[in-house]
Amino acid sequence: MNLIIIPLIAGFAQVSIAAWLFRWLKRESAGTPRMKELAGYIQEGAHAFLKREFKTISYVIVPLAILLFLLLGWQIAVGFVVGASFSMLAIFIGMRGAVRANVRTANAARTSPGRALVLAFRGGAIMGFSIVSLVLIGISSLYLIFRVGPTNPEAVHLLVGFGFGASLSALFAQVGGGIYTKAADIGADLVGKVEARIPEDDPRNPAVIADLVGDNVGDCAGRGSDLFESSADNLVCTMIIGLAFIGTYGWYAVLFPLLVRAVGKLATIIGVFSVRQWGKRGPLTSINIGLFSAGILNLIIFYVLSVWLMGDIRIFYCLSFGLLAVLIVSFIVQYYTGIKGGPVRKIAEASQRGASLNILTGLSYGLESAVLPMVLIAGVMLFGYFMLGGGILGIFGIAMATLGMTEMKGMIQSMDTFGPISDNAAGIAQMSGLSAETRESTDALDAAGNVTKAITKGYGLTKCVLSSVVVLFAYIFVLCRYQGIALTNLSDIALYLNLAKPTIIAALLIGATMPFLFSALTIRAVSRAASRMVDEVRRQFREIPGLLEGKARPDYSRCVDISTRYSLRQMVLPVLVGLIAPIIIGFTFGVWPLAAFLIGVTIVGALLAVFMFNSGGAWDNAKKFIEAGRYGGKGGAAHSAAVIGDTVGDPLKDAAGPSLHILIKLQSILSITLLPLFLAYAIF
Amino acid sequence: MNLIIIPLIAGFAQVSIAAWLFRWLKRESAGTPRMKELAGYIQEGAHAFLKREFKTISYVIVPLAILLFLLLGWQIAVGFVVGASFSMLAIFIGMRGAVRANVRTANAARTSPGRALVLAFRGGAIMGFSIVSLVLIGISSLYLIFRVGPTNPEAVHLLVGFGFGASLSALFAQVGGGIYTKAADIGADLVGKVEARIPEDDPRNPAVIADLVGDNVGDCAGRGSDLFESSADNLVCTMIIGLAFIGTYGWYAVLFPLLVRAVGKLATIIGVFSVRQWGKRGPLTSINIGLFSAGILNLIIFYVLSVWLMGDIRIFYCLSFGLLAVLIVSFIVQYYTGIKGGPVRKIAEASQRGASLNILTGLSYGLESAVLPMVLIAGVMLFGYFMLGGGILGIFGIAMATLGMTEMKGMIQSMDTFGPISDNAAGIAQMSGLSAETRESTDALDAAGNVTKAITKGYGLTKCVLSSVVVLFAYIFVLCRYQGIALTNLSDIALYLNLAKPTIIAALLIGATMPFLFSALTIRAVSRAASRMVDEVRRQFREIPGLLEGKARPDYSRCVDISTRYSLRQMVLPVLVGLIAPIIIGFTFGVWPLAAFLIGVTIVGALLAVFMFNSGGAWDNAKKFIEAGRYGGKGGAAHSAAVIGDTVGDPLKDAAGPSLHILIKLQSILSITLLPLFLAYAIF
Repeated sequence: MNLIIIPLIAGFAQVSIAAWLFRWLKRESAGTPRMKELAGYIQEGAHAFLKREFKTISYVIVPLAILLFLLLGWQIAVGFVVGASFSMLAIFIGMRGAVRANVRTANAARTSPGRALVLAFRGGAIMGFSIVSLVLIGISSLYLIFRVGPTNPEAVHLLVGFGFGASLSALFAQVGGGIYTKAADIGADLVGKVEARIPEDDPRNPAVIADLVGDNVGDCAGRGSDLFESSADNLVCTMIIGLAFIGTYGWYAVLFPLLVRAVGKLATIIGVFSVRQWGKRGPLTSINIGLFSAGILNLIIFYVLSVWLMGDIRIFYCLSFGLLAVLIVSFIVQYYTGIKGGPVRKIAEASQRGASLNILTGLSYGLESAVLPMVLIAGVMLFGYFMLGGGILGIFGIAMATLGMTEMKGMIQSMDTFGPISDNAAGIAQMSGLSAETRESTDALDAAGNVTKAITKGYGLTKCVLSSVVVLFAYIFVLCRYQGIALTNLSDIALYLNLAKPTIIAALLIGATMPFLFSALTIRAVSRAASRMVDEVRRQFREIPGLLEGKARPDYSRCVDISTRYSLRQMVLPVLVGLIAPIIIGFTFGVWPLAAFLIGVTIVGALLAVFMFNSGGAWDNAKKFIEAGRYGGKGGAAHSAAVIGDTVGDPLKDAAGPSLHILIKLQSILSITLLPLFLAYAIF
Repeated sequence: MNLIIIPLIAGFAQVSIAAWLFRWLKRESAGTPRMKELAGYIQEGAHAFLKREFKTISYVIVPLAILLFLLLGWQIAVGFVVGASFSMLAIFIGMRGAVRANVRTANAARTSPGRALVLAFRGGAIMGFSIVSLVLIGISSLYLIFRVGPTNPEAVHLLVGFGFGASLSALFAQVGGGIYTKAADIGADLVGKVEARIPEDDPRNPAVIADLVGDNVGDCAGRGSDLFESSADNLVCTMIIGLAFIGTYGWYAVLFPLLVRAVGKLATIIGVFSVRQWGKRGPLTSINIGLFSAGILNLIIFYVLSVWLMGDIRIFYCLSFGLLAVLIVSFIVQYYTGIKGGPVRKIAEASQRGASLNILTGLSYGLESAVLPMVLIAGVMLFGYFMLGGGILGIFGIAMATLGMTEMKGMIQSMDTFGPISDNAAGIAQMSGLSAETRESTDALDAAGNVTKAITKGYGLTKCVLSSVVVLFAYIFVLCRYQGIALTNLSDIALYLNLAKPTIIAALLIGATMPFLFSALTIRAVSRAASRMVDEVRRQFREIPGLLEGKARPDYSRCVDISTRYSLRQMVLPVLVGLIAPIIIGFTFGVWPLAAFLIGVTIVGALLAVFMFNSGGAWDNAKKFIEAGRYGGKGGAAHSAAVIGDTVGDPLKDAAGPSLHILIKLQSILSITLLPLFLAYAIF
């Protein structure tokens, strides 16, 4: 029996569960007519954006696919199209779930907080399940179509097209979604909260619907596409690396990642369904119960599969250490961004002395917060490397640690999507004037969502760095194949990657500038879109009579339209820059310096991303800390300062930071895909 | 004749000119009693700070010198002490000049703007001359004492102690001075300008004297010590690298850098003295005339010495290309931070929509501004490398390009110190109520100072990156000597610096986190000191009756005391972290991964520094652009937003950024110095 059937079946099984969840969700009541109306606006806005976004993406995908077909053959082109379209399909399904779960969560909160939790979490699981299953189905089908197998091992390389497609569409989705959500958010906050002094999610705010749509298209869809691509890249590259170790582990070296993922689904499903009201415990404890059951089940699965299939207990250690590292990084992130940690309190305190000191303190802790996670990630890398003996097999150890780490992604994505769903639910509850009690329980969900963010963020960044290291080694392995270097020892390629060579240092330096350029473009794109939004919201407050008194309705659709239009227009440049840079380096500096370039991109990109995530998160929570009544509370001078800090952090943490994560991997997987071209048409 | 006499004589000659300038300056009138009183406060504050700072530094220097003596011998210890004390001496002399030139410039402006320009510029030249001459005297004397020469070439290595001492004391001076000046500046701005709405440099502001002292101890002394150390490190490391090429160029390979510097003095001196009132041209044109005459003279000297001493015209190309690169980088910096460039105008425009968008736009352009200079610097590196054939000799080419680039430093430092002197002069003119006409001409000098900053900053960053690359290669060269590797080809060490090795990648990654950690600590130190200052200034406004009406005098000395005390207390931690990190890596990861660590520090440090410099500069000028009457001008909403941005940028551009420049080189030169210990006592 061809074992590839197992991941294929597991994929389809999980898709069915996602479909079942979706139908189950739709049967729930969506509440009052006002709630339905609001939810309708959000659904409409989100769908309209996704459709237009997919159209824009296809303008790049289709010609690129044709080019790939002409230059690299049909397999790469097919894989590329499948990767891109599966990625879009997954977030489309996931978002359909999310925009239905939000209003139903708000409605359930009116009668049962426990029910609301289950609805929000399972709504998130639709995204989680659709992503992990579509990745598996995509790769397994291509594996079958390309007739990969022990008799045709080289065909594994053809799978990179899938990763490239997934990465490219993810970068578009994240950059576009990020600009959308932050333009709306900044517009709503700066004019609504700061200038007009109306509360968050107030129906009088013209940008409020755009803001709620943004939660879905930015946080849900963007983050989902990020996870899709990193999962796809990670699997494909681990399989490519595995190819070098068929001698040691047999064909399992290639198939093992897919099998672990397939069986691991079980743990995810059980984890998701064990999130429910447990006695009188709060939503956070329930989610933790789910998370820990999934974790422990995964460890068991790791043990069984490592010993049974690979016959090597060290593989189990690598897998488990990866899983553990995520937890530790999450604690670090929680310290730096959590409302209970020292940094957030210091930032809140500094707000009393004005916005500048709020921002400087946040910058300072944000910069610092990058240090420990990176050192820990270096530790995981070295652990995997030395666990499998330190030689070339050590690279497989790094890939295994990464595989173990990314195994929880179905669960993590459910938690991640749970966030915007509860956020939306709280917004709908506020806007449709539900009772204070109901709002209390949606707010409790929202707060739980903010805490789980620390875990999902810690996960995101560990995953990002380690996955890119794996992709990078896949690049090196593929390059060695093409150049006929029998890679039996890392020293075999020392000459090509000699860090004492000025060309390598120069490539590293130029790679290091990429994340700066890319973030600059993304932040500027958000600022531009946000400026339009600020102008529009100011205009509506000025020109619509009776708006502030609640006597007139704002024109929500104009704001939705601005977010949609500007985000689609502004997302193209950063993505193209990210796409073109490694191509230039590949053709000019050559294929080995390109590896150094990619290392530069990875290291600096990862550092900048952590800094952006954590300073943004800390500013956000410092604001919430003040809103909870400290330093003068809402409306005081410290609060105004904290709102400015929060608004500065918004595009960093929700647009530029997450996009960097994707950029890093896109550039590496793109380089693998185009490697034959670089070798054939090098300029020097 | 021992040719070392030439740099020694040149050094002493230039010291004499500095002394003559100082006496010439003192003979000028210091103006009205009120002006003398104010200048007295500034002198007193600056001297008191420097004295206490030197005392604090000596608590670290003295025990470290004893340790070095015990572990590495008397030469390293002596070099270390000479380096540290010459560095302090140079900035002490330079600052004595600056705090006398400021008031005399203000006084001269009452009668002749041309005279004021000459006074301010020559006042700056005291710093410039004392730095370049003391570096030369220090290195040449140690060269004689250690009996370096063709018969005793290895003794060149002993000179690293001088570089280490210079770097360490520079890091203290820059971090301490940076905290001092920015705490005072932020305190004066946030409370005085924003809250109390009184103008800049208003005598009613309690922090105004501390602010003026800060210009001297931060911008003058800090920047001066930076230049001293980079000049020292650069010379020593170029000589060490030269050691490997005695076979090609004879002993000139080692001596050439010193000789170029010695003869190059001539160009600097002529350049400085040609800055005077040329007809009706403004101060900026006069400075440019000086700059260009020095540049052209330098090119001639380069040509003669390259052909005559080295017999290799390619050396001339390397030297000249380095000189040229500074000009190009300066244009880039000018575009991003100049008041006429697009970015500054965009930031000013964004200020209309609040502080957040001002800050985001500034962040965006700041990040972007790091890209082109780095690519250009990579280009200079490759130019030098390939110009001398691309092999191991190519490294000498890089060193030569760097030498050419740093040659203008006497001139650049004069321009740099000219900035704070004019700034101070404008402040004194404002505070002592001089006529509007006088203030116009001091303001014109101040504005010229702001423009020359683009050149000195472009210089600073190009110098920083290239010098650190040179120091890095010196590290590698010394390491090869110790390990008995006859370095005839860069491939000889490929195995040790294999970028495909996870240990090397991990070291690179950890190195890359260093600048984040260090900047975090520095920014936080400024924030803390500034918070104290804000509290104190608020207190004085609250508690001293009649202060705002101008009826009572503020307590200037309390503010000076706060700046002094907190900056000395807060400067220690960042410096110690910078000192200890490479030691840990050297003993644990080992000496080759340490090289990767240093590359990580260099690349990320340089990127962060450019970003900080330029975003800070752009915010500053965006504020000035608005103050010139755009978007509502002074006092409008856009102006308040721009002041917040400026205050955020202040510690970035004047404390964290410049300190990073020093940190990078300190860690590398420290690693060279301690290399024998790492080799002898490695843990693994």
